[in-house]
Amino acid sequence: MRIGVLGTGTVGTTIATKLVELGHEVKMGSRSAGNEKGVEWASGAGEGASEGSFADAASFGEVVFNCTPGAVSVDALRMAGPENLSGKVLIDVSNPLDFSKGMPPTLSVCNDDSVGEQIQREFPDARVVKALNTVNASIMVDPSQVTGSVIFVCGNDDAAKAEVGELLQSFGWPGDDVLDVGDIAGARGTEMYLPLWLRMMGALGTPGFNIAVVR
Amino acid sequence: MRIGVLGTGTVGTTIATKLVELGHEVKMGSRSAGNEKGVEWASGAGEGASEGSFADAASFGEVVFNCTPGAVSVDALRMAGPENLSGKVLIDVSNPLDFSKGMPPTLSVCNDDSVGEQIQREFPDARVVKALNTVNASIMVDPSQVTGSVIFVCGNDDAAKAEVGELLQSFGWPGDDVLDVGDIAGARGTEMYLPLWLRMMGALGTPGFNIAVVR
Repeated sequence: MRIGVLGTGTVGTTIATKLVELGHEVKMGSRSAGNEKGVEWASGAGEGASEGSFADAASFGEVVFNCTPGAVSVDALRMAGPENLSGKVLIDVSNPLDFSKGMPPTLSVCNDDSVGEQIQREFPDARVVKALNTVNASIMVDPSQVTGSVIFVCGNDDAAKAEVGELLQSFGWPGDDVLDVGDIAGARGTEMYLPLWLRMMGALGTPGFNIAVVR
Repeated sequence: MRIGVLGTGTVGTTIATKLVELGHEVKMGSRSAGNEKGVEWASGAGEGASEGSFADAASFGEVVFNCTPGAVSVDALRMAGPENLSGKVLIDVSNPLDFSKGMPPTLSVCNDDSVGEQIQREFPDARVVKALNTVNASIMVDPSQVTGSVIFVCGNDDAAKAEVGELLQSFGWPGDDVLDVGDIAGARGTEMYLPLWLRMMGALGTPGFNIAVVR
């Protein structure tokens, strides 16, 4: 499959690298083609890896991952262009962490809205699925570190969620561990979990954890 | 031990009943002594159970549970009186769910503040510990339903957290399942988890669940 990955940070490079390993053609997108991190990743990630602008990557992808910081995701996706997102599954991995007011970070949007919803409103023709934002990048693509733990998906398009479920399975997430928490407003829940996640990381002394459902 | 339980809802009655079963003397507090629910509980809960105003219950307790709705907790505690809370362990079980804007509920405070912090600021001489607000009432006092799952505590007073840990153990929470997530600002995390909890309840079809840490 051809996949666009928007964002050159840890999450973007980790997901893009995994996708190339799985045999996909992946174009990493950034603010401008030729971005240093994008070029570095593309030159080292092997065959099938390329880089370009947000618009290049979104246009290239049959599926698009948003791995940009949540507070700027809508802007980044505007640069990607609505015409390059229309009809496509858009997997939103972002978190709206705002470090500008010091530590601990607050969320740039929460409570009655979320980044997932902002994106779906701004790009009504994209099939937005929120996923993977509740674990660190390493676990996203290697859930064997946290066997039996849960990964959330939400979105308004059931077929899109099913496609994302298959992608997650290819990452190593068993179908039974994928929990569909409803429409895209469920992103409020998975994004507002971040402050607890950060506290848990502090208490456990590692970001290498996840939560499981017990009932 | 003499314990005051503020609030006559499901959480208050469940916790108060458990405490009586454990042999404590418990006074349930409400807006005014003689409250119908308070009297009903006290008359049925057996020896050691009594009821009164918020101030009666807080004055009675060596330890005080806040089981009032989070959006009105500070008001309820003002009625209880700072002099009746001073120096005492005050276990805040509340959640700031606001149903006034329709479904899903939003939080009446979040992101850069929390009910736990509001209470600690308003009553600086109380030893506030946030606990138990991440599970439903039935599980709070019967964690055998969700063996191996986690219960969070946070607060500024380590000795108070240790006392709460002992109370939680008497409820059935093994010490290893109690996770201390730091100072009282950790309440932002455990309160902001609620929107995800509500979505999980919807997806699982039951409030009878909890989360476990996997690492």
